[in-house]
Amino acid sequence: MKDMSQLPTYADVVAASERIKGQAHRTPVLTSRTANEELGAQLFFKAENMQRMGAFKFRGAYNALSRFTPEQKRAGVVAFSSGNHAQAIALSAKLMGIPATIVMPLDAPASKVAATRGYGATVVTYDRYKEDREQIGRELAQKHGFTLVPPYDHADVIAGQGTAAKELFEETGELDALFVCLGGGGLLGGSSLAARALSPQCRIYGVEPEAGNDGQQSFRSGSIVHIDTPKTIADGAQTQHLGNLTFPLIQQNVNDILTVSDAQLVEAMRFFASRMKIVVEPTGCLGFAAARAMKDELRGKRIGIIISGGNIDIDRFATLLA
Amino acid sequence: MKDMSQLPTYADVVAASERIKGQAHRTPVLTSRTANEELGAQLFFKAENMQRMGAFKFRGAYNALSRFTPEQKRAGVVAFSSGNHAQAIALSAKLMGIPATIVMPLDAPASKVAATRGYGATVVTYDRYKEDREQIGRELAQKHGFTLVPPYDHADVIAGQGTAAKELFEETGELDALFVCLGGGGLLGGSSLAARALSPQCRIYGVEPEAGNDGQQSFRSGSIVHIDTPKTIADGAQTQHLGNLTFPLIQQNVNDILTVSDAQLVEAMRFFASRMKIVVEPTGCLGFAAARAMKDELRGKRIGIIISGGNIDIDRFATLLA
Repeated sequence: MKDMSQLPTYADVVAASERIKGQAHRTPVLTSRTANEELGAQLFFKAENMQRMGAFKFRGAYNALSRFTPEQKRAGVVAFSSGNHAQAIALSAKLMGIPATIVMPLDAPASKVAATRGYGATVVTYDRYKEDREQIGRELAQKHGFTLVPPYDHADVIAGQGTAAKELFEETGELDALFVCLGGGGLLGGSSLAARALSPQCRIYGVEPEAGNDGQQSFRSGSIVHIDTPKTIADGAQTQHLGNLTFPLIQQNVNDILTVSDAQLVEAMRFFASRMKIVVEPTGCLGFAAARAMKDELRGKRIGIIISGGNIDIDRFATLLA
Repeated sequence: MKDMSQLPTYADVVAASERIKGQAHRTPVLTSRTANEELGAQLFFKAENMQRMGAFKFRGAYNALSRFTPEQKRAGVVAFSSGNHAQAIALSAKLMGIPATIVMPLDAPASKVAATRGYGATVVTYDRYKEDREQIGRELAQKHGFTLVPPYDHADVIAGQGTAAKELFEETGELDALFVCLGGGGLLGGSSLAARALSPQCRIYGVEPEAGNDGQQSFRSGSIVHIDTPKTIADGAQTQHLGNLTFPLIQQNVNDILTVSDAQLVEAMRFFASRMKIVVEPTGCLGFAAARAMKDELRGKRIGIIISGGNIDIDRFATLLA
């Protein structure tokens, strides 16, 4: 097995795309005349809200588990996650017959907890404002012989997440800019590998919620900045710090890290629902919200936006829209 | 020009598909493992909520206007509609530089009225519980020399609507059953032409809201039944009667007319939003709601569902979901 401390490359993204074929959906690339008119640009939305289990996370999880040895598969997997990674590991494990234990925050969306249990995984909860999920995960791994698959700082996870951008570029050709939501950097890191290989001139932007701009601080200061769990509706981007693999990938490949407010996320969510007829979770709105704010700079350009997921409690969705 | 009192044929659907090419979207055919598991069947959803202006109506409107003579184009078009047909005519007219006047009910969704005006059409309102929109439309046509394009009882409109099912069958191959929402019968009539040509053994079901089952009464009694404007959340199916062209097409081709309650429509809408991440207007939920109710009969079958549109005020959508 490959040394997990090594940075993944585009070759790993290509290998991942072979492994997930037939398991992950090749999600559609959506366009919107209204969005194009608003920005005076041509936008291409990679709709990972329509991915299996509702988010891009399935790509990385399935890729990581498919590289387990027979011994690892027998012993089982443990994962910690604010939601979508949990479901992704649980579903991938179910598909491969691997026992799964998932460490989830007490306040994770009920739909995500239910879906994770629905896939047959054991759920262990913790208080995300007081306890350290990474430590809980490591302890379970040691105690039971599970293999820990972290949500983003893992070469196979990053390579798997990069397959979404790979598919996007294969469909659109080269782009002028790519907007990717940023939590721990798995999607952004993987996307940056695909972008550099398939569209070398493309500007790559990571987008965080204003309240959780640890990535922006890290990018600008040159070292990983840790923050308290940020309070934002973008629950998929409530990470406290980038990873040891994702940070250097982002430093090497990404042009800038931008932030948007929760209000901008809600506006983008309303646009997706009313104009494009799709349900996008707050975290999935980060990329488009940032592109809208940048507006004039993008005039005449061809823009890629990765919509990360659509997993939101429907009651919460209705509340945010109203 | 063809005699509009003649029933359209599948050849007219094929001709329509050539005319709308490059103007209408070829909308995606969506699948859902969850829906498949629930019904024990394989479902294919034709997502006309992602059609241009948000509903299948663009197909028929564009096809009808593209057959206008130069004189008709100069004089202008008039249409009456509870919403989506209005927007479809307004947008098609704008694209062809034809002046458009639209007769809309006072209580039409605000988003639909705004969109119609946004396409540059003149909007004339009426009280749908008291006034006769067909008469208002005819009077405007006579007075100003406009050509009236009715929402469903028109050969070119029916042929245009049939292109959605044509695309569906081209993508899925033959199906065991097709569920189509039923208002005035334009979509069902056109779909039935495509189904009979491309999948002769396919059972075809029209689906109405319980409160507005004039189509079911007509189908079973053998003559067109008129009802008062029904009160239902399916505003696109609040028609009072089938048409002189759509009724015989339905009699010839359709296997049965089913009904569902508004509560079943809301359940289907929640499913679409939470599991498939798409926004569907109540009328667009008719087909899936009926398939869910039929459940056991469909086990092991390959089923097509036409989702007619996604135009719903976002606040109303939030209210219905909550």
